[in-house]
Amino acid sequence: MAEEEAHREAKPTIRVSAICGSLRRASANRGLIRAAMELCKETTIAGMEVEDVDITGLPFVNTDLESNSTYPPAVEAFRKKILEADCVLFASPEYNYSIPAPLKNAIDWASRPPNVLADKPAAIVSAAGGSAGKRMQYHLRQVGVFLDIHFINKPEVFILAHQPPRKFDGDGNLIDPETKERLRELLLSLRAFTHRLGPS
Amino acid sequence: MAEEEAHREAKPTIRVSAICGSLRRASANRGLIRAAMELCKETTIAGMEVEDVDITGLPFVNTDLESNSTYPPAVEAFRKKILEADCVLFASPEYNYSIPAPLKNAIDWASRPPNVLADKPAAIVSAAGGSAGKRMQYHLRQVGVFLDIHFINKPEVFILAHQPPRKFDGDGNLIDPETKERLRELLLSLRAFTHRLGPS
Amino acid sequence: MAEEEAHREAKPTIRVSAICGSLRRASANRGLIRAAMELCKETTIAGMEVEDVDITGLPFVNTDLESNSTYPPAVEAFRKKILEADCVLFASPEYNYSIPAPLKNAIDWASRPPNVLADKPAAIVSAAGGSAGKRMQYHLRQVGVFLDIHFINKPEVFILAHQPPRKFDGDGNLIDPETKERLRELLLSLRAFTHRLGPS
Amino acid sequence: MAEEEAHREAKPTIRVSAICGSLRRASANRGLIRAAMELCKETTIAGMEVEDVDITGLPFVNTDLESNSTYPPAVEAFRKKILEADCVLFASPEYNYSIPAPLKNAIDWASRPPNVLADKPAAIVSAAGGSAGKRMQYHLRQVGVFLDIHFINKPEVFILAHQPPRKFDGDGNLIDPETKERLRELLLSLRAFTHRLGPS
Repeated sequence: MAEEEAHREAKPTIRVSAICGSLRRASANRGLIRAAMELCKETTIAGMEVEDVDITGLPFVNTDLESNSTYPPAVEAFRKKILEADCVLFASPEYNYSIPAPLKNAIDWASRPPNVLADKPAAIVSAAGGSAGKRMQYHLRQVGVFLDIHFINKPEVFILAHQPPRKFDGDGNLIDPETKERLRELLLSLRAFTHRLGPS
Repeated sequence: MAEEEAHREAKPTIRVSAICGSLRRASANRGLIRAAMELCKETTIAGMEVEDVDITGLPFVNTDLESNSTYPPAVEAFRKKILEADCVLFASPEYNYSIPAPLKNAIDWASRPPNVLADKPAAIVSAAGGSAGKRMQYHLRQVGVFLDIHFINKPEVFILAHQPPRKFDGDGNLIDPETKERLRELLLSLRAFTHRLGPS
Repeated sequence: MAEEEAHREAKPTIRVSAICGSLRRASANRGLIRAAMELCKETTIAGMEVEDVDITGLPFVNTDLESNSTYPPAVEAFRKKILEADCVLFASPEYNYSIPAPLKNAIDWASRPPNVLADKPAAIVSAAGGSAGKRMQYHLRQVGVFLDIHFINKPEVFILAHQPPRKFDGDGNLIDPETKERLRELLLSLRAFTHRLGPS
Repeated sequence: MAEEEAHREAKPTIRVSAICGSLRRASANRGLIRAAMELCKETTIAGMEVEDVDITGLPFVNTDLESNSTYPPAVEAFRKKILEADCVLFASPEYNYSIPAPLKNAIDWASRPPNVLADKPAAIVSAAGGSAGKRMQYHLRQVGVFLDIHFINKPEVFILAHQPPRKFDGDGNLIDPETKERLRELLLSLRAFTHRLGPS
C-alpha cells in the first residue's frame, strides 16, 4: 500500500466512467461497479475514482430524435459524463452471445458526433453464465475499433456468476475476495494503460 | 414466372416475419422490407408472405419486467408474431460495427423462454454505409448459434446505401432495379432453405 | 439401442470426414476422432461412419502451386476425400484465440475451385485449455458462411482438456465417459441434421 | 517534409517487422510491404525502417517439433526478428473470411513462449477481393488480444485489389498514388502510436 500512497501523490486522479450493461436492479455487474468504486475510495487503489454512469433513462437510439446535433436531455447528460472521463469501465453480462441491448444503446448514443468515447482507454469485466461473457467482450472490442477505444489486453476478467463459491449476494453485491482481487488487478491495469497512453 | 405459378400451387405459403433494425421513419432497411412484401404479393415470388413486425413499442430488455414467464403486453404481441412465422428476415443497418441496439433488444426479448426464434430459418439484408453491414451480419450470425437460428449462407446481400446509383428515395423506398433483384434472390434462397429444412 | 438398430436399416450410411486441427502425435483432438470412429463402429450410433482425413502431408496453401485447376497430389487426395463425404466433423484445439494454422491450411485448400466443402453439414468439437475452444469455433463458423457449410447449432461441445476429471490419457485417448456421451450427442445431432437437409 | 526532417532528428528510429500473409511470388500484399520500405527510405516518412520478415521457410506449427523451449532453426530466426522489432506491420489477403494459413502459422510460432509479439504496437493492411480483408482484420485483432498486441484503431486500410483504378502491376508492385498515400497514413499512425505507448 505504500506504493499506492506514492502513486496518489505523484499523478493526477484518473476519472473512470463505469457503464453497467444490465438494467436489473440486483445486477451482479452493477455490483462489480460498486466494488470498483469502493476499491478506489479505499487506499487499495490510489489515483482513480469511479463514477457509475446511469443509462436507464436513455431512449432508443434514433436519429429522428436529433436536431442540429443536439440530443435528448438524458442523452446529453450521459454523453457529457463520458466525455469528461479519462477512461471507461464496461461491466456487463452477455445476452445471446453478444452485447446486451441496453449497453449497445448507450454506446450507439455515445458514438454520435462528436464521438465521446474517442481515444479513451477502457476495460471490460463481465459477470455472466455460459462463457462468462467471452463472446460479448470480443464483440465489444470490435465496436471499439470504430469508436477508437483503446482496450487493455490483460487481464481479461470473465466471472462465472453462478458457479461456486458464491460471488454475489441477493442484491448483486460482490462478496468473493478472490473475484475482488481480480477486479483490482483489472483496475490497476487500466490505470497503468491510461497513464502510459497519456493525452492524445 | 410459370415456375413461380407452379410453386404457388404445390406448397403451403411460407410466412416470413421481417424485423427492421432501425427505428428511423425513413429507414432504407424498412424500405427493403416493404420491397420484400411487394415482391411476394406480386407473382414475382410465389408461396411467401412477408409481415413487417414492429419493434418500436418494446421496452428495454430487463428481467425485472417479467413475472412467472409472462412479459409486458408489447413484448407478448411481438413474440407471438415471431413464433407463428415459418422464418425470419432481418433488415438492418450496422451501428458501430455491430447490431443496432433496437434490433438486439428485439432479439433479446425473443430469446426469453421459450425462445421464439428457435429452429427458424432466416436471412439477413443490410443497407448501410461503410462495409454495407458486413460486420453487423457476422455478429448476428453468432447470436443465431445460441438461438438455434438457421441462417442461409448464400446469397449474402450487403447494400451500400449511399453510393451511386441512387438506391432509395427520401422516404427510404427501394428504387433501384438491380438491388430489387438481389433482394428477390435472397428471398428465393430463404424460401428454398425453409422448404429444405422442413418442420423440425 | 433398438432405435439405433431401426435407424441402421432405414437409411443409407452417412460418411463423415473428420479433420483434426492439431498435428501433434498425442493430440486430444485426434483422440476425439478415434472415439467418434469407435462410437460409429459399435451399435451406439447407427448409420454413420467416420474417416480420419489426414492433413499432415499438405503443403502451405499457395496458388503458385496450382496449374489449370490441378493441385499437388497430396492436396488432390485430401480434396477427394472431403468431396465424397456427406458431412464433416472438425476436431480442433484453439491456437491464439482462433483456428490453428494446420486446420486453416486444410480448409484453404478445400476451398479452391470447386469448393469441396460446399453445401456440407458439419459439426465442431474442441478439446482445449482456456475457453475450451469457443473463440476458435466462432471463427470457424464465419469461415463456413463463405464456404457454404451448414453447421449444426446444438449441441456446442467445448471440452476443457486439462481440468479434472482426467479426460485423455497420455496418448490422447478419450477415457472420460461423460465426455464420450457429449461426443455421441454431437454425432447424433450431425446425423439428424444431415438427414434433415437431404441432398442439395 | 520539414516536419518529417525534424522528426528524424528528434527520436530514435522505429524498427518495423513486416509480415506478408501470402506466399505467392507476385502477391500484392508483399508489394505493399515493398512500398512501405520505400516510403521509409525516402524522406516521406522519417524515423522508421521496415524489414520484410520472410515466413516461407517455417514448418507447420507443432509442439512435437519443440524441445526444452528451443524451436527449429527457421523458427528461431523468425522469432528473433520479431523480438527485435519495435512494432509490426501485417500485410495480408483474406482467405475464406479469415486469416490465411501461412500468416496464422507464423503467428502461432511467434506466440510460443516467450511470446515475441507481446506488448508490440501493430497495424494491418490488406489487399484483397470481396470485403477487401475486413473479416480477416477483425479475426487478427482478436488474436492480438491474447498475444497482447496493441493495434492502432485508425486508419483502417482495406484495399480492393481488383477494382479500378489498377493498383498493382503484374508483379504485385503498388502503382496507385492514392493507395500509396493511404499506406503512408497508416505508417504515420503506427509511428505515432509506437511513440505514444513508449517502452512497456
